[in-house]
Amino acid sequence: MTTADANHTDRDLVLTRIIDAPREKVYRCWTDPELVKQWFAPRPWSTPEVRMDVRAGGSSHVVMRDPDGNDYPNPGLFLEVVPNEKLVFTDAFTSAWQPSEKPFMVVILTFEDEGGRTKYTAIARHWTVADREAHEKMGFHEGWGQCANQLEELAKSL
Amino acid sequence: MTTADANHTDRDLVLTRIIDAPREKVYRCWTDPELVKQWFAPRPWSTPEVRMDVRAGGSSHVVMRDPDGNDYPNPGLFLEVVPNEKLVFTDAFTSAWQPSEKPFMVVILTFEDEGGRTKYTAIARHWTVADREAHEKMGFHEGWGQCANQLEELAKSL
Repeated sequence: MTTADANHTDRDLVLTRIIDAPREKVYRCWTDPELVKQWFAPRPWSTPEVRMDVRAGGSSHVVMRDPDGNDYPNPGLFLEVVPNEKLVFTDAFTSAWQPSEKPFMVVILTFEDEGGRTKYTAIARHWTVADREAHEKMGFHEGWGQCANQLEELAKSL
Repeated sequence: MTTADANHTDRDLVLTRIIDAPREKVYRCWTDPELVKQWFAPRPWSTPEVRMDVRAGGSSHVVMRDPDGNDYPNPGLFLEVVPNEKLVFTDAFTSAWQPSEKPFMVVILTFEDEGGRTKYTAIARHWTVADREAHEKMGFHEGWGQCANQLEELAKSL
């Protein structure tokens, strides 16, 4: 993790969790589409569609579905990929290099080995403080916290 | 060049030029700080300061100076680097991965071999149509055109 990543600002929302699985498995849960479908959305939401080109400049397309059947597409782009260690992606681009309508956040995920377990850190870094506040009110901590539980459950089962 | 790059939209400003120098030299003019200082700003503007970490995720810091001595810093970040072929950078980040105050554009440069000469294409792709229009009114075509002349003059002299 670089100094810039560790320098949490008022535009950041941060989740840190020790996950009881090796980081290779946690990373797989984030990068294998069939695994992503199993944990990505907080239940009873689901994740029916996942396409990912996991490399810097590669696109990501994840669709979340609410209990009423409404779909919420999440187009994005990977900016940095270090296998088993780090993933960075953003909604500022829809593909390489097409700006999106509204850059909202860049997400920086790190997976650190903690004696066979994983220190999992997710930073949601927003373009504006107002966007950070809105994301927090939308329930970032509850939502990402529940998803981290689902992620851990799946990683442990692999 | 990918299909996405070739698909010029109403958010794009594009300059294309055949430069009478091999693409390795044109690329060097874009990536060697001492060379960048010699052509980057349209004269009588100058470019007193250039720092570049030319790799995906690397920062770029270029200062332009007007004839009255006022400095205009241009912080940015490289998103994609293919030596002698392609450079992509943006002002949407000031470093990896710190969002800037206002994402304005991503610049996609391609250097194609044309029998020893270089087909040089610069796409300035903006986040909004309004930003593209503003950039055009600021004199994109004249400014980038003059700089392309300066770039060619330098590349031919190497």
